[in-house]
Amino acid sequence: MNERIVKVGLVGFGTIGSGVAKLILEDGDSIAKRIGVRLELACVVDIDTTTPRPVKLPDGILTNNLDRLLNDDSIEIGIELIGGTTIAKEVLIKMLQAGKDVVSANKALLAEHGNELYSIARQNNKCIAFEASCAGGIPLISTIRGGLTANNITAMYGIVNGTCNYILSNMTACDEDFSVALEQAQKKGYAELDPTLDINGSDSAHKLAILASIAFGCEINLEDVYCEGIEQISRDDIRNGNEMGYCLKLLAIAQKDKQNNVTLRVHPSFISKENHLSRVGGPFNAISIFGSAVGQILLYGRGAGMMPTASAVVADIIDVALGNSKTTFQNLSIRSKSEAGISIETIDNQICRFYIRIMCQDKPGVFAQLSKVLAEHNISISGLLQHEGIGPDNTVPVVIVTHQTLQKNITAALEDMEKLEGIGGKPACIRIVDIPEDKD
Amino acid sequence: MNERIVKVGLVGFGTIGSGVAKLILEDGDSIAKRIGVRLELACVVDIDTTTPRPVKLPDGILTNNLDRLLNDDSIEIGIELIGGTTIAKEVLIKMLQAGKDVVSANKALLAEHGNELYSIARQNNKCIAFEASCAGGIPLISTIRGGLTANNITAMYGIVNGTCNYILSNMTACDEDFSVALEQAQKKGYAELDPTLDINGSDSAHKLAILASIAFGCEINLEDVYCEGIEQISRDDIRNGNEMGYCLKLLAIAQKDKQNNVTLRVHPSFISKENHLSRVGGPFNAISIFGSAVGQILLYGRGAGMMPTASAVVADIIDVALGNSKTTFQNLSIRSKSEAGISIETIDNQICRFYIRIMCQDKPGVFAQLSKVLAEHNISISGLLQHEGIGPDNTVPVVIVTHQTLQKNITAALEDMEKLEGIGGKPACIRIVDIPEDKD
Repeated sequence: MNERIVKVGLVGFGTIGSGVAKLILEDGDSIAKRIGVRLELACVVDIDTTTPRPVKLPDGILTNNLDRLLNDDSIEIGIELIGGTTIAKEVLIKMLQAGKDVVSANKALLAEHGNELYSIARQNNKCIAFEASCAGGIPLISTIRGGLTANNITAMYGIVNGTCNYILSNMTACDEDFSVALEQAQKKGYAELDPTLDINGSDSAHKLAILASIAFGCEINLEDVYCEGIEQISRDDIRNGNEMGYCLKLLAIAQKDKQNNVTLRVHPSFISKENHLSRVGGPFNAISIFGSAVGQILLYGRGAGMMPTASAVVADIIDVALGNSKTTFQNLSIRSKSEAGISIETIDNQICRFYIRIMCQDKPGVFAQLSKVLAEHNISISGLLQHEGIGPDNTVPVVIVTHQTLQKNITAALEDMEKLEGIGGKPACIRIVDIPEDKD
Repeated sequence: MNERIVKVGLVGFGTIGSGVAKLILEDGDSIAKRIGVRLELACVVDIDTTTPRPVKLPDGILTNNLDRLLNDDSIEIGIELIGGTTIAKEVLIKMLQAGKDVVSANKALLAEHGNELYSIARQNNKCIAFEASCAGGIPLISTIRGGLTANNITAMYGIVNGTCNYILSNMTACDEDFSVALEQAQKKGYAELDPTLDINGSDSAHKLAILASIAFGCEINLEDVYCEGIEQISRDDIRNGNEMGYCLKLLAIAQKDKQNNVTLRVHPSFISKENHLSRVGGPFNAISIFGSAVGQILLYGRGAGMMPTASAVVADIIDVALGNSKTTFQNLSIRSKSEAGISIETIDNQICRFYIRIMCQDKPGVFAQLSKVLAEHNISISGLLQHEGIGPDNTVPVVIVTHQTLQKNITAALEDMEKLEGIGGKPACIRIVDIPEDKD
């Protein structure tokens, strides 16, 4: 086969950048055999040209001069692996304007400025491919846009942040406190020194915004996504939930009903231990997608890490090199919400079941008051758990599981509960998500 | 957006054909909005034009005259959903020669005559898309060729036949005999009246041949796949395995070692209950794929049925209509084994652990003889199970689990065991497959 050579330039020589360089340099032969195109790494741009990386570049490739990439017309594809939303945005736009197709793994950038960037790409007759922005090595975006394209996608339930899943899995398995599990995740390299964006749910929200915009064919802003993190999760709640048949996961959820009302939310979620997602452990990601024709599809794999993410970036580079990304991007129809007829439902109007833990003083009448508050807000009790034995401050945890309830009713009830005498502090409240299982 | 119209013709108006017609007719608007291309069902060809189907076609579309499709130059894409390997092959070739790109869901045809058909397609500058041939609605082929294209794929472990999985799941859950579970599957519509091709493993072997040829980029013939079905499985063995921590599945397995030795096999397999595949129940399919960069990926979904399979067929039609399939097909590099440097390992030289159940007469010396036979064939015992109590014919089942053993040693040992006095009939032997789990 007559190999075509496609030159690529990479900006951002961190962990993922090193993985991409490694794949192109070390597996270039076998990739060329498989696809008939040879990828040539023409330059790697980074402000830091001295720190050793886990891959050895050929001499003269590493530079701190972006213009070398921009001005070299033989470079067809620019790879943005800088991260962040400021310099990365500038670089991405410059690459498009210099006539390069672009591959990016930057979920924050695409979630916040995707529409603007897509439009600049279209003006320049170029494309942006961004498989690696969501769930690392799992081919999620190509599945939604490709394999499931004949489907009306009605729901997605995903574990899309490996850091949170690692922490929650360890808290569950070892009955550990959040802080201990976080430290462990940092030691293992699964959490950054500043883990804020992961543990507060922002990273999952970024990914959900990107995935939902593709699945529903409509512009999604970050503000459309309700977001709660895992910082406040107590191991007591994980243990109680476990006893009641639930497993705690940080879920990113997108749902579209028949009236095209869309709900988008990221929050800690109790799910049935029988659900496939409950078995997704450690730093792994998985997502259940529901399509009108296909039913349920589940994809599982590594959502982060050097080589899994590089696998997705290089798959995108190949897709661009073969010309497929251009077609896909040209046909990527992301309309405004009004054009798509879609409205976003606020969290207040969402309905689910709730797990509530209230620290009650061990004296007569406290539970009667609690029950009264619930009744006043039209909340029906589905399950109760109170173990015998009293804590050091003369309080006992009472766990209430509700039937399907409107969020705003729960919010109001929790406020009223806090004011009751005999209640120790703010009740803990975790949503129970009943993921439908496609059964025979 | 200015919609382009792409006319398609469908041959074979059975279950899947009805699903495809339904999707194109009923969801044509939303598909057009998503992809900017409107699919128009120009004709449906079947010898039976009278039996009612679950979809109403527009007047004048249904015909028993294939030439209407072949001679209509405005029809760009032909869909082959006839099944079987005789008429289907003729029709597929005629469509290619008449200048149509082709979409097919016919695993038997592609597994047996794929190389010939691909070559005819290339001669006519047309493409064949066949996502629906493997694992129904799960986008498996596009994942291997697309999302994982930067990877050297080293192994695949799949549950790719829903009929067998339904039967084995029911035998396990209800402690049922094979014949009872098969009848149940037939009642539910998960097994055909003649279920031979499903239960003898052929259907899984067809799919494995197609998947392996794409994953390894090399021609795979059906004869390269070792194949055993589930007809001989006894519920006693499922129960014993269960007690020892195993779950029985019909697995399709492809492995490639560093020397490019490839093993391809379909057989009943005991897998750890902790493995994700053990939780794939009922008629569902799932496959674990191991790639050099991505690590482990798992895909799960419906492997059969009208709408899930139609979902994959229509995704292929869209891919062809957008022009992506042509690029993918042109770059589909399937070399001969010698060109690819691949050699197929025979089953005799394969190594795994084995579960053996021997019906022994309850008298002194029988187990000593068994142990001697195992020792003579260099087989080491890893686990033993013998329950107290004697069966009606004065025999007791003795279960032996071996360490890693060469297949030919087991085969020889089983032959020797049968000849022993005090042994009741042929021992039952099931392979134990230790699927690697990509852990943190």
